[in-house]
Amino acid sequence: MENASKYEALTVETLASRLGGIATILNRLGGDASDWKVNEVGDGNLNLVFIVSGASGAVIVKQALPYVRLVGDSWPLPLYRAFYEHHALKRQEAYDPGSVPEIYHFDETQALIVMEHFSPHAILRNKLIAGERVSGLGRRLGEFCARTAFRGSELRMASADKKADVALFAGNVEIPAITEAVVFRDPYFNADMNHHTPGLDPVVATLRGDVAMKAEVQHLFRAFSAKAETLCHGDLHSGSAMCTADDTRVIDPEFAFYGPMGFDIGMLIANYLMAYFSQPAHRTVSDLDGYQEWILSVVEETWTTFKSEFAALWSSERTGMLYDRRIFEDQGHGADGPLNALLAEIWSDALGYCGIEMHRRTLSIAHNADFETIEDVAARARLEARNMMMGRRLLLERGEIDGAANLLAMARRFNGEDCT
Amino acid sequence: MENASKYEALTVETLASRLGGIATILNRLGGDASDWKVNEVGDGNLNLVFIVSGASGAVIVKQALPYVRLVGDSWPLPLYRAFYEHHALKRQEAYDPGSVPEIYHFDETQALIVMEHFSPHAILRNKLIAGERVSGLGRRLGEFCARTAFRGSELRMASADKKADVALFAGNVEIPAITEAVVFRDPYFNADMNHHTPGLDPVVATLRGDVAMKAEVQHLFRAFSAKAETLCHGDLHSGSAMCTADDTRVIDPEFAFYGPMGFDIGMLIANYLMAYFSQPAHRTVSDLDGYQEWILSVVEETWTTFKSEFAALWSSERTGMLYDRRIFEDQGHGADGPLNALLAEIWSDALGYCGIEMHRRTLSIAHNADFETIEDVAARARLEARNMMMGRRLLLERGEIDGAANLLAMARRFNGEDCT
Repeated sequence: MENASKYEALTVETLASRLGGIATILNRLGGDASDWKVNEVGDGNLNLVFIVSGASGAVIVKQALPYVRLVGDSWPLPLYRAFYEHHALKRQEAYDPGSVPEIYHFDETQALIVMEHFSPHAILRNKLIAGERVSGLGRRLGEFCARTAFRGSELRMASADKKADVALFAGNVEIPAITEAVVFRDPYFNADMNHHTPGLDPVVATLRGDVAMKAEVQHLFRAFSAKAETLCHGDLHSGSAMCTADDTRVIDPEFAFYGPMGFDIGMLIANYLMAYFSQPAHRTVSDLDGYQEWILSVVEETWTTFKSEFAALWSSERTGMLYDRRIFEDQGHGADGPLNALLAEIWSDALGYCGIEMHRRTLSIAHNADFETIEDVAARARLEARNMMMGRRLLLERGEIDGAANLLAMARRFNGEDCT
Repeated sequence: MENASKYEALTVETLASRLGGIATILNRLGGDASDWKVNEVGDGNLNLVFIVSGASGAVIVKQALPYVRLVGDSWPLPLYRAFYEHHALKRQEAYDPGSVPEIYHFDETQALIVMEHFSPHAILRNKLIAGERVSGLGRRLGEFCARTAFRGSELRMASADKKADVALFAGNVEIPAITEAVVFRDPYFNADMNHHTPGLDPVVATLRGDVAMKAEVQHLFRAFSAKAETLCHGDLHSGSAMCTADDTRVIDPEFAFYGPMGFDIGMLIANYLMAYFSQPAHRTVSDLDGYQEWILSVVEETWTTFKSEFAALWSSERTGMLYDRRIFEDQGHGADGPLNALLAEIWSDALGYCGIEMHRRTLSIAHNADFETIEDVAARARLEARNMMMGRRLLLERGEIDGAANLLAMARRFNGEDCT
């Protein structure tokens, strides 16, 4: 799927000359390629990302690097992830039109995607740190999670198509391997690349000493590795959403894999909750309660929307082989029972993945800015401790937390506790 | 994977001339191919099977037909199933040496496998109908299920190897599609090819009217379609085991697929239980109790062996990415907790698949000889009703049946009940 010998990483200097001959890009940007403005904006862990602006517009150019950018060339990483990102974007666009960037150009050899530039959107995580509200955020991401989960599964897809797609994405080995290592394994032992805030040793010891909790993590890891229900985004944190005050889009599905229907929404809720727990370090007292409660309202809206959208698709688009209408509706039997059981399973899985994501972002290699930008180390430890201990509670009680209201109540309790 | 234009079905008359030039076969059978004795013995639903005997030995020649033999050419079926059977046999041999026929020759274009002839083995189902005991049966098949489940999963396999194998077997679409239709769907509505014994209408109505039970069936169907934990045999009924008085081998894995670790053993237990429930029509009163109890002892031995063998492999061969030793043993924590939870999940899944198999063999297209050979229709209905109603109980209570002893007690209760 790649020709490594011809691959060459773009630079700000070479980009215009290398892409200036591609008509679809030229038409969109206008003018002469030599007049393009090229800014390298990649702040993620893996890739080169450029905003390229011309007289009549702008595009994003994203190019995979042959190693993990965060670590360097000691951690090689195949270029084929651009191939999978491209395939994932196409499917997400089909499942939830308008949710993800339009692709203008894809070059497999150069591991390069030229795509829609969302403007004036900003990364959701930065908005949450800055205390900005996004109208419709929970609704939009709840819809995205529900539509991709449902429409990418055999609730809707023909089984032959889904099997072919599972085979395609099974070729993506090294990218999920990052998740396998840094999400499901490293937080729970003393792995080389781990780091955590000073003062958290007792919390870390509590987590690593909890065999029942670690068993839950590994059961969820087994489901991650084998429960190939739908095409997951695979990395749906608040750095993978771009928003204005009232518009939300999703980017960066290079970790896409066939996995559990609760995976994406669980990881997303974890990132909401980490924003929530980090707020005392980012807000003045007068703003704090209101903004934290707004974040919790987004959690609730995300899950409420997921449920209602999933239920609507269950009624209108259940054309796959599972839960066949001839077994339920055609015999005068409602299919609400199995729907509700499935939603309960998705919720329980989601809360488990939520807890794990809360752990790995404070224990493993890749922390997130919500906490990392807190310079007062003691304050950071205090807030991270709440997050880590609630993650544990979620893992242990995920089957018994009935609905979003109970999840919110749990978050409020931990938000007032000394967990260090 | 096939070249249909060159494919030609073998006949008793043409087999020797077509295969007589293949050295590995000639060496094994000895003599001149024109002296070979060729018997067509296929009694399954799908393929041609020949026993070919020569001066110094015998082999099995199995050739796929381009349609479902049971139905005829109105139900086409791809020849590539021989390709998957061949791959499944190789893996089963690696995971449990000696358990399956050795392959002497594989011809992909002719969809043909020449393999070891087990002699004087007979199909287990026929022995169970005849009231014959097989020493070590439960132990052997329990080992087979445990070894293939464990060694084909990411408890042991490298994740990259497992992903590649999932992709390979995902190419097998039409064969699992048979299971999808006739096992998980057709029994639960009035499908065209269904048939059931006269007198069972009320039982069928009870099953189809039980929405909670049908929901369980569909949850298990979802797991069948997506819980790609290990390479399952896919059709491990008592027609897929060949035995002498003290030796047991497994054949016919053309339905192989990546699925739940509890699938094979659940289907196998269902076939033991169908043998059990059918016995009153096959035994004299003086033999009946003893033989039925022997079958139940096989059920118990199968599950007990599965558990102990799986636990032994968990200790000695847990080299995959799941339940990493660095998270458990290396921190001084036993991994018995997650092992027992996993075994409980496998058992619950197995009992669910067991219940479904008990239904489809009395309701869907392909019944089995245990019941079908009972000529007294009223007696057959009475015995099948017990089997069907216990299948329902298993589906509804599969999470609460603690161990084989409780399963056996349930079977004994149904064996004394009037369920029509």
